[in-house]
Amino acid sequence: MAERHIQENIQKRLGQIAPAIVAWRRDFHRHPEVGWTEFRTASLVADVLEEVGFQVLVGQEVMNLTSRMGVPSEVVIAKAREKALKNGANLKWLDRMVDGCTGVVGVWDTGKPGPTIALRFDMDALPVHEEATNQHVPARLGFRSEIEGQMHACGHDGHTAIGLGVASILSSLKETGCGRIKLIFQPAEEGARGAKAMVEAGVVSDVDLFVCGHIGLTAKPTGLIATGVTRFFASTKIDVTIKGVPAHAALAPEKGKNALLAAAAITLQLQGISRHSGGDTRINVGMLEAGEGRNIIPSHAKLTLETRGVTNEVNDYMTEEVKRIVKAVAMMYNVEEHIEIVGRSIAAPCDELLMNRVKEVAISTGREWQVVDTLPFDASEDATYFMEAVQKRGGLATYTLFGTELSATHHHHAFDYSEETLLIAVELLSQLVADVLFSEVKV
Amino acid sequence: MAERHIQENIQKRLGQIAPAIVAWRRDFHRHPEVGWTEFRTASLVADVLEEVGFQVLVGQEVMNLTSRMGVPSEVVIAKAREKALKNGANLKWLDRMVDGCTGVVGVWDTGKPGPTIALRFDMDALPVHEEATNQHVPARLGFRSEIEGQMHACGHDGHTAIGLGVASILSSLKETGCGRIKLIFQPAEEGARGAKAMVEAGVVSDVDLFVCGHIGLTAKPTGLIATGVTRFFASTKIDVTIKGVPAHAALAPEKGKNALLAAAAITLQLQGISRHSGGDTRINVGMLEAGEGRNIIPSHAKLTLETRGVTNEVNDYMTEEVKRIVKAVAMMYNVEEHIEIVGRSIAAPCDELLMNRVKEVAISTGREWQVVDTLPFDASEDATYFMEAVQKRGGLATYTLFGTELSATHHHHAFDYSEETLLIAVELLSQLVADVLFSEVKV
Amino acid sequence: MAERHIQENIQKRLGQIAPAIVAWRRDFHRHPEVGWTEFRTASLVADVLEEVGFQVLVGQEVMNLTSRMGVPSEVVIAKAREKALKNGANLKWLDRMVDGCTGVVGVWDTGKPGPTIALRFDMDALPVHEEATNQHVPARLGFRSEIEGQMHACGHDGHTAIGLGVASILSSLKETGCGRIKLIFQPAEEGARGAKAMVEAGVVSDVDLFVCGHIGLTAKPTGLIATGVTRFFASTKIDVTIKGVPAHAALAPEKGKNALLAAAAITLQLQGISRHSGGDTRINVGMLEAGEGRNIIPSHAKLTLETRGVTNEVNDYMTEEVKRIVKAVAMMYNVEEHIEIVGRSIAAPCDELLMNRVKEVAISTGREWQVVDTLPFDASEDATYFMEAVQKRGGLATYTLFGTELSATHHHHAFDYSEETLLIAVELLSQLVADVLFSEVKV
Amino acid sequence: MAERHIQENIQKRLGQIAPAIVAWRRDFHRHPEVGWTEFRTASLVADVLEEVGFQVLVGQEVMNLTSRMGVPSEVVIAKAREKALKNGANLKWLDRMVDGCTGVVGVWDTGKPGPTIALRFDMDALPVHEEATNQHVPARLGFRSEIEGQMHACGHDGHTAIGLGVASILSSLKETGCGRIKLIFQPAEEGARGAKAMVEAGVVSDVDLFVCGHIGLTAKPTGLIATGVTRFFASTKIDVTIKGVPAHAALAPEKGKNALLAAAAITLQLQGISRHSGGDTRINVGMLEAGEGRNIIPSHAKLTLETRGVTNEVNDYMTEEVKRIVKAVAMMYNVEEHIEIVGRSIAAPCDELLMNRVKEVAISTGREWQVVDTLPFDASEDATYFMEAVQKRGGLATYTLFGTELSATHHHHAFDYSEETLLIAVELLSQLVADVLFSEVKV
Repeated sequence: MAERHIQENIQKRLGQIAPAIVAWRRDFHRHPEVGWTEFRTASLVADVLEEVGFQVLVGQEVMNLTSRMGVPSEVVIAKAREKALKNGANLKWLDRMVDGCTGVVGVWDTGKPGPTIALRFDMDALPVHEEATNQHVPARLGFRSEIEGQMHACGHDGHTAIGLGVASILSSLKETGCGRIKLIFQPAEEGARGAKAMVEAGVVSDVDLFVCGHIGLTAKPTGLIATGVTRFFASTKIDVTIKGVPAHAALAPEKGKNALLAAAAITLQLQGISRHSGGDTRINVGMLEAGEGRNIIPSHAKLTLETRGVTNEVNDYMTEEVKRIVKAVAMMYNVEEHIEIVGRSIAAPCDELLMNRVKEVAISTGREWQVVDTLPFDASEDATYFMEAVQKRGGLATYTLFGTELSATHHHHAFDYSEETLLIAVELLSQLVADVLFSEVKV
Repeated sequence: MAERHIQENIQKRLGQIAPAIVAWRRDFHRHPEVGWTEFRTASLVADVLEEVGFQVLVGQEVMNLTSRMGVPSEVVIAKAREKALKNGANLKWLDRMVDGCTGVVGVWDTGKPGPTIALRFDMDALPVHEEATNQHVPARLGFRSEIEGQMHACGHDGHTAIGLGVASILSSLKETGCGRIKLIFQPAEEGARGAKAMVEAGVVSDVDLFVCGHIGLTAKPTGLIATGVTRFFASTKIDVTIKGVPAHAALAPEKGKNALLAAAAITLQLQGISRHSGGDTRINVGMLEAGEGRNIIPSHAKLTLETRGVTNEVNDYMTEEVKRIVKAVAMMYNVEEHIEIVGRSIAAPCDELLMNRVKEVAISTGREWQVVDTLPFDASEDATYFMEAVQKRGGLATYTLFGTELSATHHHHAFDYSEETLLIAVELLSQLVADVLFSEVKV
Repeated sequence: MAERHIQENIQKRLGQIAPAIVAWRRDFHRHPEVGWTEFRTASLVADVLEEVGFQVLVGQEVMNLTSRMGVPSEVVIAKAREKALKNGANLKWLDRMVDGCTGVVGVWDTGKPGPTIALRFDMDALPVHEEATNQHVPARLGFRSEIEGQMHACGHDGHTAIGLGVASILSSLKETGCGRIKLIFQPAEEGARGAKAMVEAGVVSDVDLFVCGHIGLTAKPTGLIATGVTRFFASTKIDVTIKGVPAHAALAPEKGKNALLAAAAITLQLQGISRHSGGDTRINVGMLEAGEGRNIIPSHAKLTLETRGVTNEVNDYMTEEVKRIVKAVAMMYNVEEHIEIVGRSIAAPCDELLMNRVKEVAISTGREWQVVDTLPFDASEDATYFMEAVQKRGGLATYTLFGTELSATHHHHAFDYSEETLLIAVELLSQLVADVLFSEVKV
Repeated sequence: MAERHIQENIQKRLGQIAPAIVAWRRDFHRHPEVGWTEFRTASLVADVLEEVGFQVLVGQEVMNLTSRMGVPSEVVIAKAREKALKNGANLKWLDRMVDGCTGVVGVWDTGKPGPTIALRFDMDALPVHEEATNQHVPARLGFRSEIEGQMHACGHDGHTAIGLGVASILSSLKETGCGRIKLIFQPAEEGARGAKAMVEAGVVSDVDLFVCGHIGLTAKPTGLIATGVTRFFASTKIDVTIKGVPAHAALAPEKGKNALLAAAAITLQLQGISRHSGGDTRINVGMLEAGEGRNIIPSHAKLTLETRGVTNEVNDYMTEEVKRIVKAVAMMYNVEEHIEIVGRSIAAPCDELLMNRVKEVAISTGREWQVVDTLPFDASEDATYFMEAVQKRGGLATYTLFGTELSATHHHHAFDYSEETLLIAVELLSQLVADVLFSEVKV
């Protein structure tokens, strides 16, 4: 454990910045930015990190341009950048976030040998139209989304605020520890599009301990902390487009090459991919759009789909099945197919050693938290890319959950959570980092 | 035959109004209005009919409100009405076209006993974005559509102009014939939505001879006239909506009720409806739109489809199959289905007696036209409702084709035709009406 | 017309051999032989032809070995040959019918220049278990099938008897005509497997006039004669086998390659082949057999199917679609497919000139027959291969129907017909041949 | 533990009867009998049980007639009974095994208060044609199946022999313990058809400890013992028959009601039943047979299928989905469906207390066995019905695996195993029963 006075300093400092943490969260909530367009958010993050004394890396310093997935069109990115500028983003940072490279990393090096610990926070919002009635707290308190059709409906506004809270607290510690801290602010977690590009830029290639987390999900009530999770689904996000040939449906139906029928056949065939003895799988064609008119043999179709598996192997099996089926159906209907992987996450285990350390730190704070070992995740997260990279080099990684009451489920237009949870997360993560940096000193 | 001097009068008068016919056509082309929103077109038609001395019936005088199919929402109709007003429609008529009842009928009664002959012209445009390059004549000559996303891409602008031309010529005949003329201007032919409502309002319940026609289709070159057609496809236009239940695709896929899968299954099953020994059939799901997001079990779907058959019986078979299949698939996926018939046309034979009369009249004009008996239609037309109604009461009906060169196929964004064809149609139809009215006199 | 005395001779001779014709028919009925195993039937036919003075060609003299389709295994053929020997077949002929080449052609050459007329009769039975109750005439009168599971349920027993009747009558004519007669006795018409091999052996390469016929079908009552038919369906008979890989359905379902699922997908996809603007089509997967056990991923499947089209082009379209779909589905399920064409017939028009001649001859007999021009066939016949070959070399061909009352539909286990019809067919065909041979003399 | 001298007696006695155990096994192997026809096997079992002093219950004394599933036709049962008689079955027992009630239970009551322990052995063979080459040990050593198309390919011959071995050893113990022993010989385990009927007859309604087991599966090599298993799949075995209406595929395809298409659609739809968040599921249509002829719209189809789930709830979900889908598809094709449940097994946990006791006993023998706690079963067993019943009344149950090398996988035609395994199983089970009976005495 970090020495008692360090723990107390952290708790005191937390009390001071609590209003700022809530203010940050509400500011982000008012200005949601979907994946690869988090210009304003990232700019504000960079400002704060710089202000509290972290070295700030942004853009291609922390992202491999070509490893990004599901990047929107240049037009969309340019418009988002402009809007960010209008809403107060700092041009200094924007100029370094070329092409939507909106990742930010804050580094604080003690200068003394020791472990490197990294925390990761995601920043992106969702294409959801936020609830406007008075029952919805953000609407009632005046921090509802100001961007039509975009909303922080998953809690990443809170995650980013937690990151800034941790940065603020750590910078206030007068004592000097050993080792290094990296605070990673990742874009485009939704759709599992952003982590891989940061990993491949080497962001965690020197990291020994990696901790990520999420508020809510299966964790409640406020005060519950799960030190790790099980059952990450590895997942692949795939867009399929089909190009056929139109024809008049009465005069010459046989001259058409029917993209809509191909899309329907793909959908049903994907649904029938065999179960796998290696573990649970999932398949979902979430959206289908096809055709031009009632009396025209449809010449285009677009499918938005995803596969999942409880292991990487099983998800790979699903992805390969998707590819073969799409190609075969295209052959069957004599149409052209295009398959694009627009997102991907993997499965990674949480390390028991690190989970135990989180638990000890949590207990040592004296807070009345309810600490459990693991909860099942049963969904996908691209933080797993960071976890895998750290584990591969011999480091440890875990993924914590911070309980909270929810007003509605994640991704729902009336989603909201207890801001108390943010403070708990800031404290736990700060204590953990302190513990790592200062307990090593003693050795 | 009508007497020779009448024929010559018609030809002389045609020469005088030819510029007006072309002007009308181009005006309509510049102001296309899709089905049930033909306020400006119908208003202008009514103005001309009144001016040349026809009795003018509009709105519910000529349409059964509840027999209309595929009527757009009130908002859409209200906006179209406003736009029509701005673009010169006559409020006098608009006030009588309640709820998008945009049909117009011009009646000219000689007051003497004799046959009633009716001609039918359709007025609606298509939701097509018109070609803007200089190769496209309407663009080059300055009468391209002024309404974004709407276009006269099937020739109904010409049909309406032909109707006004016939009205003008007939009104100029000093001699008085026997019987009555009805000029029927129908909305919403596209999608086979408008004719039934006019038939059920009794528009042809006193008609002995009915003639409709179309420019282009399989008829070319300019100067070719087919006195009738074979192989009308009876057709049913159907919208299917599916309502399911959303769920998270990873956390609880079994809790969802998948509307997209249901739509895909419907599509493939409809495609497999058995061939029928009673004759050719067609089925087409022309558009499919479903789903809310990649990782959500889709909770809604919409299918836009049509059936066809070379006889009414065979098309009825197709329609009943569609209904049973949709209901069964809904049961299969535990989702709710809604089936709406939004258009319908029937098959009707052309009467040989009337075809022969058209032929004789055509030849008697001395024009160098090429007259053929029939061409295969191989598509659908709701003019067949008028034909059937007239035939049921013992009258005769036919559907003529007026040949023309086309710049592109019907419904194409670069569709255009020879305006010379309009003059041919006006003359043939005027001579035919004159023949009916005046030859009966002689008897 | 042939001279009156010739006509009378034919009628007299018919009276004499009528009992023999009925006896032949009943004998064939008692000893049905399915396609490519007609050893006893063909042997008996050859005996009679030889006896009445025809030159007899059999086996590979009249069949191209490799053009045969749907030939059963050697074992099946060998067993059928043995059974035929036991039941009285003449070894002299059997020795010339190597490998199931059971075709026979009788040639009668007048030695004088003149046209060559060919008639074709089919000899094969069906794999149907014949009705045994007393209501069924063949059972009551003691000529029910003696071969378990095989039956003359389509009337080919009668066709063969007609051929022998015609041979007998023609041979009795003392007068000498001009030209040549060919009586073609074809095996394996069911499944459209035998005609092509005879055509490719040149059986009709010298033929000017070709006439085939069928008793029953849409023709009734007895006494009705259709001089030709319309709407032959071109048809392809296809066997598809699928080979997959078995696996335990619970322990490792993903290791299997599922032949049954592939067969099911093929079936549904074939059913959905697009309608064709070129005319009516048909598709039928008539049998499917797949799988090894309830808890094993199925590793084999067999589909028995056919396509049809009212033109050769349209049937070719169907056949090509089948091939592409089968291959694509095999790719989709990662299984091996094998496609075998086991039968094929084409569409061919009846020649009006020859139909008229048949009509004149029929009328000239003075019989009280009802002669109509054509009836729709709406099914498939490989006699069309002969027709096409004759027409291609400038000859004329037609396909006549001889009306009869039926006790049950064709291919039904209680199928039976009026034997009176056989006599009518023998007379008409004999008179027609005589007319050809003797009217040419006069010229 | 039972006293040492008892353990030694058991080991000594085992040495004496080892040849008999092997002989029994080989005799059963030579006379395999599939489910509900185990007349000879059951009769022989009853003879031995009676001989060694057990009370013998057979037929409806131990089976509820109407709870049996997947019972073959009376004819099949009658023939099997006759064959059993011919091959040495004892008429005394057969007369009590009415209608194929081939279950046998041996009861040995010490007469003193104490626990009741039950062991269960299954007796049925499989419809597999046994390998005949010399590589296959049973063929080489002369005990290959003498019944064409039936084979002990799962090891139930060994299970029955183990049961008789245990009976023999226990009867030889001079000392008298406390409590009761029940040796349950169950028919029709394959297809999960027999256990439920024995449970519902009350066979285990007085049982405190229940042990079942299997040789082979995932357990190897010989000498390995798993004291329990995880992941029983609950399973439902379902036969679906479809009745349609035949029609000629060319003349009137629309008049048919296509049972084959319905069967194909059912197959594909079942394959697409949604994954379940409650755990692993399986679906397999293992066999499909449909149709009458190539050119006939198929009027019958039969599907042989099964569902599985790692919990009873999840398997129930699968079964309900099957029912709804079958009914919906029948509606879709306008055909009649019949769904029959022909087998069913459930999931049941192994009790750790009993697993531990098995382990202790195994270790106490001093044998060099490798004892592991659990192995995953990943398949289905209807012994789970006994387990559930015992557990519901407060008893304990487990399912042990006895390792062996296999010559081929279970259900394979070349399946064979090490007979050494049988002796190990006999000893462990005997020691366990002795431990229960005698250790209770000491208390």
